[in-house]
Amino acid sequence: VIGSVAIVGAGPGDPELLTLRAVRRLAAAEVVLHDALVAPQVLALAPQARRIDVGKRAAGRRTEQVVIERLLIRLARRGQRVVRLKGGDPFIFGRGGEEALALAAAGVPFEIVPGLSSALAGPALCGIPLTHRGVSAALVVVSGHDLGAAQQVLAPLLPGSATIVVLMGRERRVELAQLLLRCGWSAQTAAAVVQSASLPSQSEWRGSLSELAEPQLRSQLDPAAPSLLVIGEAVAMAATQATAVGEKIAA
Amino acid sequence: VIGSVAIVGAGPGDPELLTLRAVRRLAAAEVVLHDALVAPQVLALAPQARRIDVGKRAAGRRTEQVVIERLLIRLARRGQRVVRLKGGDPFIFGRGGEEALALAAAGVPFEIVPGLSSALAGPALCGIPLTHRGVSAALVVVSGHDLGAAQQVLAPLLPGSATIVVLMGRERRVELAQLLLRCGWSAQTAAAVVQSASLPSQSEWRGSLSELAEPQLRSQLDPAAPSLLVIGEAVAMAATQATAVGEKIAA
Repeated sequence: VIGSVAIVGAGPGDPELLTLRAVRRLAAAEVVLHDALVAPQVLALAPQARRIDVGKRAAGRRTEQVVIERLLIRLARRGQRVVRLKGGDPFIFGRGGEEALALAAAGVPFEIVPGLSSALAGPALCGIPLTHRGVSAALVVVSGHDLGAAQQVLAPLLPGSATIVVLMGRERRVELAQLLLRCGWSAQTAAAVVQSASLPSQSEWRGSLSELAEPQLRSQLDPAAPSLLVIGEAVAMAATQATAVGEKIAA
Repeated sequence: VIGSVAIVGAGPGDPELLTLRAVRRLAAAEVVLHDALVAPQVLALAPQARRIDVGKRAAGRRTEQVVIERLLIRLARRGQRVVRLKGGDPFIFGRGGEEALALAAAGVPFEIVPGLSSALAGPALCGIPLTHRGVSAALVVVSGHDLGAAQQVLAPLLPGSATIVVLMGRERRVELAQLLLRCGWSAQTAAAVVQSASLPSQSEWRGSLSELAEPQLRSQLDPAAPSLLVIGEAVAMAATQATAVGEKIAA
């Protein structure tokens, strides 16, 4: 009997932001292979499962992608119900596509369970709309981990024509903000940095594009927290009350 | 006693793709103001609530945005627990930002509950990754309802440099695909149309950009279904098995 693999998006971190389907797959899992960024509270939803941390960190321990794929296939062939749990959504900067192809090639039954990407949920939890009528009607998402691709997409944009989200953007903040300024974006363009979106430690910096480009902003940011940049006039339309009041409503 | 408003993303349609928080807010709601596209199975999660359909349709009945905002404020001031339920995510082409600003200005407590946008979940449910290592490392999302903004963002893109998703794209399919071809995108670029993402009626067309640009493709598409276009080489990396096997796993 062959098992199966569910490639599941864990969302930005808060377990309440998992989908019902993700919760069901976790509850039924026999093995969970998870990334380093998946929160312990999310893993707690699979109490019976064996957990394997295959988190790829920038430095330190690191499991090769091909090793992860072979492990998924081997576990499924042993008849296990496997959940491959990824922070955010598995199909946006999650390499879920590579794993899906490997499983398909091996004839292993699999499914994709989409999750909330922090690219969208992070700004929303800070009250920042990604589109806003008369202000922005387009969204561009890039990753700070692939600077070349980010530059290639951002440089030709008509200044102000889209809201830009840079996932894992903290380390590339200065060069990407300076690139936009060189490309004609107004120094006054609204910008934000969202860190640890949805977690109790969530924090937010808000300012202008020229402030975002300043190296010394670094001292105000947590160097260890997952960070995303949001750039564009839609950021100025944020209803700042949202997060605090959300907590009150939830309480 | 003042009530509150939760601006909740209902996801693409399948109730299993709601977040836990969305389900909790619906269960506790006294009034639900919802869009036309929200599925009946999702509304069924708020069995005790009064339901008000404020769906804005392209033709036919239509509630003005300002009327919706006034209604939210009035209901909250009467002490009601209100859920404002929107298809997908409320902050991406959902006008949630406008409603949040109106509530903030009126001093009404509110929160944002992000939902799965069909821009990301739709392709994922068809096995289509939006980014793929070595293939695409950027995502651009526009709406067919704002053709000018879409053209402004898409025209300057370096051909092939991003995966493009056009929400509500069916009616603008030919002109946007032709625009990309004129701008130098390869006729062989992979493309897809996803209709009724996540619903039992979900369907998918897959082909090339030049085929997407052909008017006669219309006969293969459901003219009434919500439709999104996906364009870019990442579409060619789709693991086509995903949906069917997902159903098997779920059964």
